[in-house]
Order: sequence, then structure tokens, then C-alpha cells
Amino acid sequence: MANIKDIAKLAGVSVTTVSRVLNGHPYVSMAKREAVLQAMETADYERNINAVHLSKGRTNLIGVVVPYITRPYFGMVVEGIADEAIKDNYKLVLIQSNYEAERELDALMMLKLKQIDALIICSRTCSWETVEEYTQYGPIIVLEDGRGHQVSSIFMDHYQSFTRALTYLRSKGHHKIGYCLARQSSPNSNLREAAYRDFYRSRNEAYNHDYMFYDCVQLEDGEWIMQRILEMDDPPTALLVTSDQVAAGILAFCRENGIDVPGQLAIVGFDNQPIARMMHITTFEIPLVEIGRRAFLQAVGGGRAHEEIHLNMIERQTV
Amino acid sequence: MANIKDIAKLAGVSVTTVSRVLNGHPYVSMAKREAVLQAMETADYERNINAVHLSKGRTNLIGVVVPYITRPYFGMVVEGIADEAIKDNYKLVLIQSNYEAERELDALMMLKLKQIDALIICSRTCSWETVEEYTQYGPIIVLEDGRGHQVSSIFMDHYQSFTRALTYLRSKGHHKIGYCLARQSSPNSNLREAAYRDFYRSRNEAYNHDYMFYDCVQLEDGEWIMQRILEMDDPPTALLVTSDQVAAGILAFCRENGIDVPGQLAIVGFDNQPIARMMHITTFEIPLVEIGRRAFLQAVGGGRAHEEIHLNMIERQTV
Repeated sequence: MANIKDIAKLAGVSVTTVSRVLNGHPYVSMAKREAVLQAMETADYERNINAVHLSKGRTNLIGVVVPYITRPYFGMVVEGIADEAIKDNYKLVLIQSNYEAERELDALMMLKLKQIDALIICSRTCSWETVEEYTQYGPIIVLEDGRGHQVSSIFMDHYQSFTRALTYLRSKGHHKIGYCLARQSSPNSNLREAAYRDFYRSRNEAYNHDYMFYDCVQLEDGEWIMQRILEMDDPPTALLVTSDQVAAGILAFCRENGIDVPGQLAIVGFDNQPIARMMHITTFEIPLVEIGRRAFLQAVGGGRAHEEIHLNMIERQTV
Repeated sequence: MANIKDIAKLAGVSVTTVSRVLNGHPYVSMAKREAVLQAMETADYERNINAVHLSKGRTNLIGVVVPYITRPYFGMVVEGIADEAIKDNYKLVLIQSNYEAERELDALMMLKLKQIDALIICSRTCSWETVEEYTQYGPIIVLEDGRGHQVSSIFMDHYQSFTRALTYLRSKGHHKIGYCLARQSSPNSNLREAAYRDFYRSRNEAYNHDYMFYDCVQLEDGEWIMQRILEMDDPPTALLVTSDQVAAGILAFCRENGIDVPGQLAIVGFDNQPIARMMHITTFEIPLVEIGRRAFLQAVGGGRAHEEIHLNMIERQTV
């Protein structure tokens, strides 16, 4: 596909001039403007690109499945993918799954039908068996531990980082530790729950199921979590919250209701989003934009790879 | 394209069963599972969809240009577009422009090359002339006042809502009112600045250029804005902030530094994002998800239309 440089060459003007014409910049002579528009018209844009795809077998489109585009977590991953894609002249086809298998299958079908060159699944809903049936049609990249499966993957050490967070809270004297997760049944949640159970079992200690909160995904969820905690006779003294948005919602509720953080309740977040920096929340840094970049590079790189990302804890003021 | 119902019919099973197979649900007999997988294989998925596009002249893809996907403002618009698109079996091709004309032109080229059926530009960078050259190739929808141009548009009454906000602040006794905008030269910013100038000029009053802040887009920008205000001999007593994210950043800085809001500084935000509800920020509600939905409907509806959206002010605790 011709780009701005080709147009400049064809029109006999500089790239800057083309850019100015496109931007409607006032200081371009009418003659040059005409030349640029003419060049755009006569450049090889006219051929139907879909026909080109048929012959080349490539679309320069990468499919990206996200459960909800509005969640900052996924927004940052998509930004990383988009940043890298633009360099290689790829575009993204966005499929919002709402965690419905049919929508994710739709994306897998696009790969099979060669409407996209590769597929990145940011949070999987379909079974491994379903996903693996489609790997014969093009690269599939998942953002979870995909070792042992016919996909490429980039994943975080959720088990280790949860263990580290628990050890850290224990070192601060906390025994009654709760957690707030998003989906109860997701691969990432399973790893975190395993880390939690193993932590308590290895110490021969019991843990309280009332301290486990699920479906915690956005700012507003902080309120019902805290209301439930306030009703407990024996509430947790610390919470591991796998989203800074939710952690911020909990912290805001505490501040408004005179609950001392970390005195009465310690909070550890995850992601290190801007809101965690702003509210001084102790959190684990997840390099989401970088993860998106690497996912794209896996998508176009060929071959299968599995990359594990280690998370760093950032101590601030909520523990 | 065959969907889950077609597969169910072909396999002689219920839609629920197909869904269970896709989800890897354990309670499905091996025979039914095989039937479903077989049906998926023999369904008409094999034809190359790009060839279908050539004959039908449709791709069922809608291009969406956003400057930055991570900004909640645009994330909410894209969610609205995606919500509506899925109902009609459309998918979105996301083009992150970073406000670079070349990237936006790339999206316009996709329309010309019939890689997408329509294009929604959430925040325009190219000139009207450039955009209008491409309307012959398919519907183009802009999220700004497009009346008088060869496009469809959905736009908010930025002039009126800014005027209402100024009148409201004046009724509360404020004369030294500043504003925080994103891009200085955008169509929306121009309307807001015009409303501001007209408000002061119609009252024969002078206004202070030091009270005008630009490039205010995210949470972190609250800090430098407040630091600049703290250095002023004669600071503003109220701020109109066209992003709740920035308003939240300003408010957080004030709370940490003992600046009384609204006593020393009144703040009016825009968008009514979750963070504005959480921090009790007085703001204008912009129905971003609804705007996204309507943009999609314009994109597939045919014909040109211009819809104006009226914004409502929500009084909370920052004025």
C-alpha cells in the first residue's frame, strides 16, 4: 500500500508538504496542494485490497479479543499492541467478548477464514481444546500460562507474586488476609487461589472463606466489598486486590467512612495504574503496555514461544 | 457466516449443547461433542471470506479512529460502538491515531480500498477537505459538529454547556474562572473557548490568559496545573475541567495539600466517569456509550444525519 512517502515522490514535493496538505495547513501553495491530491488519486490505491489479500494470503490485520474495552487493564494491553502494530503497518480488529464463548469463537473463525493474520486473546473464555483446533490456521497468542498447549503465550507469575504479597503482609503482622478477584474461574484467579491455599496450608493454618470476594472489577465494587466487611464480626485486616481500580474504590470508601488505612485495613493492589500512584496504593507493577507489545511481536514473529513476566511490588502507603 | 444456531442444526443438537462444547463444559457426551465438532468442520466456514467480500462488496468491518485507546473517554465510546456492532455481526477495526494525520489518512484509505464498510472518527486530525474527499467511498461519521460538511455527525452542545457552567459558577459568586482543555486547536476546544470569550465579553469584563490550561488529559496532569496555580499572585477561584480524570487529579492534589474544595477552588468536571461519582465531583454528564451506539447506527443506517446531544450538569460537592 502506498504511503505518504510514495505520494510525496509522485507529487514531486516533500513529505512535509504532503503532511501539511493532509492537515489543511494554510501555508501550502495551491499548485502544490493540487499536485498532492492528484498524486493521491493516481497512486496505486485503486486496486481492491481484498483482491491483493487473496493473492498474498495476508490481511495485515491482527485480531484482538478483550472482554471489555473500557477496563483500563485491557485498554493498556491494547495500546501496547497498537503501538507495535503501527510500526509494521498492521491494524487491529477488536473483538469485545464480554466473556461469551460465542464471541470468542467468532474471532477464531476469522482466523480460519483468513480475515486476520493472527489472533491475540487477552482473556480466554473458550476451552483449550476449542482454541487449539484453530492454531492450524494462524498464530494464536494468549495472555496466560500457555505452556503445554499449542499456542504462544505471555503470562505473569501470578502464583509467585501472590505468595510474595502474602509473605509481605504476614511480615507486617497480618494473619486475617482476604482477597478480591475478578472472575472466580479464570486461569489467573486459579493460580492466585492456589497460592493463597498453599500459603495457609503450608503453615497449618485455617483461612476464612468469608474473606474471599469475587467479581471485583471496577471502582464502584469497592463499596459493596467494604459494606460486607463492615458487617463481619471478625473482619480481615488486610486485602489483596487484583485491580487497582477496585483497590482505589475500597480506599476511597475507607477515607470517607473514617476507616484507617493501613491501621484498620491494609490494601495491596495490582497493575500500578495511574490511580494507584495518585492514591499512594501499595501495588504490584504489571507492565501491561509492554505485554501488549510483546504479544504483537509473537503474533508476527512466527514460531511458538512462552514468556513469563515477573511482577515487582511497589511499596507506598496502604500497608 | 454460519453461527452457533447453524452449527446446532447441522449437528442435530441444541444451541446450549454447542455452547457447552465450546466452553469445554464437562457434562456433554462424547458423541454430541463429536457431532458438534464435525458440524463446525463441515459447515460453510471453508470458503474464503475475502472472496465473499469481493462479490458482496461488504466486509462487515467498521473502522474506528481514536487518538488513544487508553483514555476512558474514548474507551467508553468504543464500547458503545462495539455493543451495537455485535448485534449486527459487525467487527471493529481500531486505528489509534495519536493525533497524527498520516494514521487517520490510513483509515480513510481503508474505506477507499473497501477494507471497511464505514469509518467513525472519534476525534479528527485531518482537515475537513481531506476527510470529505473520502465520503464518496462509504459513510464517514465524526463525533463533532459536522453540519455543513459531507459527513454524518454526532456532537455535543459544547458551547451551550460551557456557557451554562460559567453561568452556574457566576451565580455562586465566581469571577476568576479558569479552564483546563485537552488539545488547544480541536473543534470542541474552539467551541468552548468561544463560549468563554463570549461570556466575558458580553459582560464587558476582562479575563486572564493565565487561567487557561491546555494539554490536560490525564489524572497526573492535575499536579502541574495546581502547582502553576499555587505560584499565581491572583489565582482563579474556579476551574472548568473538560475531563473528569484531570478534575480528579486536581481534587486529589488539593486534598493532599490542604486546599479547600470548593472553598478555595471550585471544580466542574466533564463526562461523569466513575471516578467523578466516587470523588463527588460536580460534572456534566456526557452519554459516551450512547454516543458510540448512535455512531454505529449512523454508520450502517445509510444517508447523512447530524445529531446534537445535550449535556446535563450533575451537582455534587466540588462547587
